[in-house]
Amino acid sequence: MRYPEILAIAPDPCEFVYDEHFTMLYALGIGCGADPNDLGFVYEHRLQAIPTLGVLMANGSGDFITQGGLDFTRIVHGEQRLTLHRPLPAAGRMITRTRCLSVADKGRDKGALVNIECTASEAASGELFATAVMSLFCRGDGGFGGPAEVEMKLRSTPSRAPDFEMALQTLPQQAALYRLLGDRNPLHIDPEVARAAGFERPILHGLCTYGIACRAIMQACCANDPAKVAHVEARFSAPVYPGEIILTRIWREPDGVAFECLVPERGITVIQNGYCGLR
Amino acid sequence: MRYPEILAIAPDPCEFVYDEHFTMLYALGIGCGADPNDLGFVYEHRLQAIPTLGVLMANGSGDFITQGGLDFTRIVHGEQRLTLHRPLPAAGRMITRTRCLSVADKGRDKGALVNIECTASEAASGELFATAVMSLFCRGDGGFGGPAEVEMKLRSTPSRAPDFEMALQTLPQQAALYRLLGDRNPLHIDPEVARAAGFERPILHGLCTYGIACRAIMQACCANDPAKVAHVEARFSAPVYPGEIILTRIWREPDGVAFECLVPERGITVIQNGYCGLR
Repeated sequence: MRYPEILAIAPDPCEFVYDEHFTMLYALGIGCGADPNDLGFVYEHRLQAIPTLGVLMANGSGDFITQGGLDFTRIVHGEQRLTLHRPLPAAGRMITRTRCLSVADKGRDKGALVNIECTASEAASGELFATAVMSLFCRGDGGFGGPAEVEMKLRSTPSRAPDFEMALQTLPQQAALYRLLGDRNPLHIDPEVARAAGFERPILHGLCTYGIACRAIMQACCANDPAKVAHVEARFSAPVYPGEIILTRIWREPDGVAFECLVPERGITVIQNGYCGLR
Repeated sequence: MRYPEILAIAPDPCEFVYDEHFTMLYALGIGCGADPNDLGFVYEHRLQAIPTLGVLMANGSGDFITQGGLDFTRIVHGEQRLTLHRPLPAAGRMITRTRCLSVADKGRDKGALVNIECTASEAASGELFATAVMSLFCRGDGGFGGPAEVEMKLRSTPSRAPDFEMALQTLPQQAALYRLLGDRNPLHIDPEVARAAGFERPILHGLCTYGIACRAIMQACCANDPAKVAHVEARFSAPVYPGEIILTRIWREPDGVAFECLVPERGITVIQNGYCGLR
């Protein structure tokens, strides 16, 4: 890693334009469409965007990987944060601005945590809609001499029993569908690439699981109203295989809910330290 | 109906441009993606178009409905024919030309059959790729004084037991997904619109069932090779509800296969007099 130079990389602002087609495809990509209660997410009549669509507006992390000299073969998507400053429109034209928020050095053996922030503001009004922070865990870039800790820390999960549980089924073709939204990493569709990476078969996108967690929370706690969701943050701890059931465990907290996601079939936790701020 | 004026309506040629994203979305729209054997239809690596994608190139039937004075509230898609002059590319730029091939008068009580032909030729080479004929059964337009019969007739289905049977599952969200390909008729997603039309819930697009029949035939008889499919024709006899299993019964014939599609759960035939020409 080129440090501290990586902190000064300043990609040009980008435009992110999305239409109702994209918003409906996003909802289908995260498993909507079978439940009649999801009609407003998959039908142009009174269409609403699911809040986690905001993470797809973020781009430009490539600049930090190439110009920042990161070892892209050893990067995993570690954490994701998203703040919705107001509900996303069903279609829009956004200007996105990306910067490297911070980097933490976990040591040569462990790696580096690179936090990339992207804001999305409506092109016409200039109003800020979303701020996304993607945390890349760069396993090949530890020991560069930076600070060991940064200010960001996910909340801990309550030890008491959850207040809600919501199981949502993924489709066997969920990753094939989700990748049409833009992330065409072959890890999510090509059996040979998946095996070479150490997985028994192609894995679901972490951000697809993230969107499914948001759906679970909206159904359990928000009467499925996307306007209630102000913030979603989570750590990706293990991958989901398409077709598996994702169980979201949810705890009421003063200003929102804590959550985690499991795949009961394999007894593993796929999202840890989740927190969803609610309005 | 304005007859014989409808026969002289000549819409301007249109351009139909499609990319790999569209070709993959089409495959997902007709239920691919769960079976590993369908990988070549949903992954940009060695992507192949499913032949029945050709029906989506046809457009301009609206001109015949409006300029031809048809009662659009009483039109149903009766039959569909598609000839693939050569295998469709995974992405392409086609010029489509539409004409009214023929009309038949089935009497004032029954209606009129309007056959609209659309050809698709590659813009760059001028080569003809597909000819589609959509037969609209116009229940409000019979008794206009035209010929009672036209030369087109679907083949009859063999009375012997079928040589192959192939059951394919549709998704509960199949219609929500298929409509992202362009046919946004609310009958396929809006429960109120579906009930007003006399259905218990939204119905699957007939052309989605048509594509699923093509998949069944490719799997049963063509080692899933789309290049083998030269022609597909069928009559839509009843709708499928999303989530149902479609059973395709297939009979070997000298130059292809005859087929029909059933929904075993309800004991009804949804596609009759199907024929698929094979290379």
